[in-house]
Amino acid sequence: MAKISFNPRTTAYPMPVVLVGATVDGKPNYMAVAWFSKVNSNPPMMMISLGKKQYTSQGIKENRSFSINLPGKNLITETDYCGIVSGRDEDKARLFETFYGEPGNAPMIQGCPINYDLKLAETIELPGTHLFIGEIIGAYVDEDKRRGHIPDLPQAEPFMLVESPPSTYHQLGPQTADAFKVGKKLKQ
Amino acid sequence: MAKISFNPRTTAYPMPVVLVGATVDGKPNYMAVAWFSKVNSNPPMMMISLGKKQYTSQGIKENRSFSINLPGKNLITETDYCGIVSGRDEDKARLFETFYGEPGNAPMIQGCPINYDLKLAETIELPGTHLFIGEIIGAYVDEDKRRGHIPDLPQAEPFMLVESPPSTYHQLGPQTADAFKVGKKLKQ
Repeated sequence: MAKISFNPRTTAYPMPVVLVGATVDGKPNYMAVAWFSKVNSNPPMMMISLGKKQYTSQGIKENRSFSINLPGKNLITETDYCGIVSGRDEDKARLFETFYGEPGNAPMIQGCPINYDLKLAETIELPGTHLFIGEIIGAYVDEDKRRGHIPDLPQAEPFMLVESPPSTYHQLGPQTADAFKVGKKLKQ
Repeated sequence: MAKISFNPRTTAYPMPVVLVGATVDGKPNYMAVAWFSKVNSNPPMMMISLGKKQYTSQGIKENRSFSINLPGKNLITETDYCGIVSGRDEDKARLFETFYGEPGNAPMIQGCPINYDLKLAETIELPGTHLFIGEIIGAYVDEDKRRGHIPDLPQAEPFMLVESPPSTYHQLGPQTADAFKVGKKLKQ
């Protein structure tokens, strides 16, 4: 198939969406974030990339704490709102019930089935963003969205941002294969 | 709903899977990677997090180039294999047709509908990984998987790794809402 160049600023992979929590100006604030990833296994670390002027960035720098909350599809409207509106202008935390792992840490959202509590480990400055790398110090799952002590991710009903204009949210689809298994047949 | 703690090393979000290309020991090599993200818009930059001993890490450090290739579900078996087997042991590039954006840059996979060509911009050392941040210098999409000059991501049939043991691959599901739009109704 012939290849066509496209604008390299277009993000062409499905981006799971989370709500990042932080205490800003003494109050809980939540922001929708699609640029994040696990980055280290031991200790477990995740990174988020936020615009330098984001209200949340200010709170993370002040308190060296943030949370990553995975919303289910029942929170798509609230999540989208948290990506459109700044905490400088509106109180976004009013939409959620907030809880804390330890006092002084970042606020987390009770209504999100999966929550990570993180301590800031490193901040990398890029041209337009701050890359915040945090160590996970707590992980929580709703009692009814797990198998044993492991989160049952499909039950949490996460959703993905697809940025081919117009941008849309997509559900997680059906299982297609077993990971770390199906490829064994190609071993030489 | 009551919250239960879980092991913070468990990655509880759907991870899109890509094949990272690099020239290692003078030959093209591909590795399956689920820890990656867009991290900057202007210039467009992406990051990948690789174990320090990965064969691919060696190639990226040597050539300061890597590629990110988005496989469709027709390549699930090949992608899984590229996550199980090291390029030190087997020639993984034999499974793919390789192309290059510019001579000397990283190898890309013709059979993947979306390809990014990156120049290494920064390397961050974490306890167990190298975080490679690259600037996107080329972006390619299959002629039949686009709308105008924009990739049509659902048509590319990407898949996600779900790490609730046993780990599985899931397709992108149906669209559920319009992004940057549905949340407007909550504005005060």
